[in-house]
Amino acid sequence: MLHWLRRYRRAMLPGDVAAGVVVAMMMIPQGMAYALVAGLPPVVGIYASILPPVVYALFGSSMTQSVGPMAIVSLMTAAVIAPLAPAGSGLYSVLAAQLALVAGLVLLLCGLLRMGFLANFFSRPVMSGFTVGAAIVIAAGQVRTLLGAPFPHFHLPSALLGGASLLALVLAKRHLAGLLRRCGMRPSAADVAARLAPMLVVLAATALVPLLGLEAMGVRTTGDVPSGLPHLNLATSSAHWRALLQPGLLIGFVVFLMSMSSAQALALKRNEKLVSNHELIGLGAANVASMVSGGFPVTGSMSRSAVNFAAGARTPLASVIAAALLALSLTAPTGWLALLPLPTLAATIIVAVLGMLELDTLRTAWRYDRGDAAAWLATGAGVLALGVEAGVVVGVALSMGTLIWRASRPHIAVLGRIPGSEHFRNIERYPAETQPDMLMLRIDANLFFGNVEAVGERIEDEVRTHPGARHLVLVMTAVSSIDTSALFALEEWNLSLGRRGVTLHLAEVKGPVLDRLKQSDLLRQLGGPIFLSAAMACDALHAAAPGRP
Amino acid sequence: MLHWLRRYRRAMLPGDVAAGVVVAMMMIPQGMAYALVAGLPPVVGIYASILPPVVYALFGSSMTQSVGPMAIVSLMTAAVIAPLAPAGSGLYSVLAAQLALVAGLVLLLCGLLRMGFLANFFSRPVMSGFTVGAAIVIAAGQVRTLLGAPFPHFHLPSALLGGASLLALVLAKRHLAGLLRRCGMRPSAADVAARLAPMLVVLAATALVPLLGLEAMGVRTTGDVPSGLPHLNLATSSAHWRALLQPGLLIGFVVFLMSMSSAQALALKRNEKLVSNHELIGLGAANVASMVSGGFPVTGSMSRSAVNFAAGARTPLASVIAAALLALSLTAPTGWLALLPLPTLAATIIVAVLGMLELDTLRTAWRYDRGDAAAWLATGAGVLALGVEAGVVVGVALSMGTLIWRASRPHIAVLGRIPGSEHFRNIERYPAETQPDMLMLRIDANLFFGNVEAVGERIEDEVRTHPGARHLVLVMTAVSSIDTSALFALEEWNLSLGRRGVTLHLAEVKGPVLDRLKQSDLLRQLGGPIFLSAAMACDALHAAAPGRP
Repeated sequence: MLHWLRRYRRAMLPGDVAAGVVVAMMMIPQGMAYALVAGLPPVVGIYASILPPVVYALFGSSMTQSVGPMAIVSLMTAAVIAPLAPAGSGLYSVLAAQLALVAGLVLLLCGLLRMGFLANFFSRPVMSGFTVGAAIVIAAGQVRTLLGAPFPHFHLPSALLGGASLLALVLAKRHLAGLLRRCGMRPSAADVAARLAPMLVVLAATALVPLLGLEAMGVRTTGDVPSGLPHLNLATSSAHWRALLQPGLLIGFVVFLMSMSSAQALALKRNEKLVSNHELIGLGAANVASMVSGGFPVTGSMSRSAVNFAAGARTPLASVIAAALLALSLTAPTGWLALLPLPTLAATIIVAVLGMLELDTLRTAWRYDRGDAAAWLATGAGVLALGVEAGVVVGVALSMGTLIWRASRPHIAVLGRIPGSEHFRNIERYPAETQPDMLMLRIDANLFFGNVEAVGERIEDEVRTHPGARHLVLVMTAVSSIDTSALFALEEWNLSLGRRGVTLHLAEVKGPVLDRLKQSDLLRQLGGPIFLSAAMACDALHAAAPGRP
Repeated sequence: MLHWLRRYRRAMLPGDVAAGVVVAMMMIPQGMAYALVAGLPPVVGIYASILPPVVYALFGSSMTQSVGPMAIVSLMTAAVIAPLAPAGSGLYSVLAAQLALVAGLVLLLCGLLRMGFLANFFSRPVMSGFTVGAAIVIAAGQVRTLLGAPFPHFHLPSALLGGASLLALVLAKRHLAGLLRRCGMRPSAADVAARLAPMLVVLAATALVPLLGLEAMGVRTTGDVPSGLPHLNLATSSAHWRALLQPGLLIGFVVFLMSMSSAQALALKRNEKLVSNHELIGLGAANVASMVSGGFPVTGSMSRSAVNFAAGARTPLASVIAAALLALSLTAPTGWLALLPLPTLAATIIVAVLGMLELDTLRTAWRYDRGDAAAWLATGAGVLALGVEAGVVVGVALSMGTLIWRASRPHIAVLGRIPGSEHFRNIERYPAETQPDMLMLRIDANLFFGNVEAVGERIEDEVRTHPGARHLVLVMTAVSSIDTSALFALEEWNLSLGRRGVTLHLAEVKGPVLDRLKQSDLLRQLGGPIFLSAAMACDALHAAAPGRP
């Protein structure tokens, strides 16, 4: 906690201040836009950008993570709350904050139980497919606001403003940094300055509203944004705890996943150490803080954290400065924010999530591993067809499915002796010699419940196709662990082989595995020694074989 | 399909006939009892014991599996249907059959898609904890029927009859086989004959009902059992498809799990080959057949299959004979079955499920692997606290949880050279020498999404504690696969290390892994060669190091 403050050096301050200013300017349109995605009044998005990052700065482990509203988590919030409360009602806001509390408590609990390994339930391709699917859902949801009417209809002034905002944002994203560089700006400064385009476009569009009388033409705006800091919120709906429990679990999981993948990418860039259990606690505390300040579920945002990083943030002080600036902006007159046109906000959302549409992971997976590519596509399709919440479950199921499916086809090599040597190698890849009365199998995987059936089947097949075999030696060079299921399987294979006059032996068992096996009955049941090497097994068993020369 | 019939030899017939007779006699009380567990009229249990085993004989892969009603699946059926239809109603029966259809279609689909690996989603300890938890739930559910009133009340005549039946059954289970052996019966025959005790106890109790006028005293009996074969049933409730989908998936999964664990145990005993995809198809067809004959979800039963096996069954003909005998029994007068006292049936259920209360797995896991023991206990507790359906989900979550948790702590060894040799070994276990400018790490696990984070953290730690290292060599002897997530991680580690002036190298990459990596950009990015051995990596890198002698 606050370990970064104790090591703070004055040289870090300019970077942190610059990043704080940039992130605060990014946060105003982004926070308001994501609050709209969540179905909440825009100002709630700013509330959720003040206390949570400060609390995260106290407890989190990433130096440059920017915690606050985030597109996917906002979408999930809307999906959870919309069926429970009318849009715009007080209950809706209460439930959104309560959802942040549930997610926050779940995250805190997982952190205290040191369950950081939960982030490993999503494979990279599944994560990417999930993100792309969610980005499409979010962008599609904004088309109606952009056009001012349900597609394919449109409200001309809204659609023109929205379209122009979209065009300006896309052009700025593509060309602004290059332009600024050509104007002599330092490349890194140009990149950061270009990220302020949404703020500029929003300011310009807001200025156009009174100038052109757009409100009178029917262009919708954010409406009154209350001035002043958020009040302390402790309101909860006791009737809804149960309904929020499961969604809270899912959202907590997604908050953790999103934040970890963002923080990991940054930590790699600056060789920082990220502690997943601290991250759980930091995010949990941030979500509880979001509830207390009347917000909604928050997480680390990849795009915002990248800007924070690029703008020079060295420590979480940058986030604290950004939060202070946002708090200041709320105490200043906020009348102008009321005129912010919604089609422009929708355009900023669409452009932001278009940045999440990366297909590199799919392309790499397609070339490298079709199973992973299939998991990518299935997760994306799951999000589009069933929604983001179900998409999380589909993603976990597919990650686990590919894992167990792969485990169910372990690599097992039949070994033979390289003539004249002590080396035993895969007979399919080397000119190695086998003995008719002896089968040597090298199992190239840890033995666990996911592959014992497949290993057992392979042993059966080999024993059946080598009816002369009297000894079966399992060479365990690549086996680093044997779980309880596999222990039982070994005992059963030993019995079953024994009934057919085949003796089971183990060779090259690793130290830690052997230490563990000594806690079981297996070694006693095997009857023979554990051989230190395949060669020693071969020599000992042949010397013992009756009738051999 | 029917492959066993083509290789049928007359010598197999006596065993099959004997087993068929024994299983049929077991089936009558057992089928009726499990129908009661499922909340259905007792005769439905006999219906479900006729067509399903015959259809399984056509499509299944186990030679000695006895398919029919089974305690846990019956309990799940009751849990699913009870909230949807009043007990005893026509709708209840229709939905139970429809549930068998849904489960059957799910199983058929999984079989056609060759998804037999699904059985690997349950670890052995989780399966054992699940079974014990379910057995306790089932036994507790029968106490009321046994006592004739809700515990702690009791209806004296019912409780006396139930208690006496229980006592007789427990004594028979413990001592009958020994007694018969001492009377000169062959041990195997004595064991089988002892398994007919439930039938004898039921017959005796049924005889007592009219003799003592127990019905008039208020002892409940099964009531009229309609004579004749089941009618063709195609009735479904179109309003309930959606409600039955998810339970159908869960029940299909449990049907498959239960049947596989039973069939595997038997296949090991007789060295038969079990094909999990055929098993899915056989069970799927059997459940569709159960629906068509007005039954409910069925599966292979461990205890009944063991009796079938012990009584001499060599092929599925034994099951066909048992089914034919049951069909015959329904065409004979069934009036006597109406007098079968429910407390006695409850006693047979309790004694049957007490056989499922095995604690050996827990005991072994406790000694061998506390994590697996914890998973056992948590699954059992989950079944007791949340019910059997939720227990399945808890079981899968815990199996996957222990898997990912273990994966998140992979074994990684720092290697050094055994002085004067070409061998590189774990410096913690061997007196091996390291070089200050070179780090050698052997990763003892397949690289996949579940452990890349942990491996990355370990690499970070080692690089941080060895600031002089200029080369990091990952020795891949134990790595048999690298998934897409790990591929990305390797690329990122390479970049991140490169920024600090540390070069990443790979050594001893297995053939299949290397073939796969050639489909990616990684090898090009690494810049250096893949070393054939740790020794070659060490020599080459030292030769290349500037300023070395």
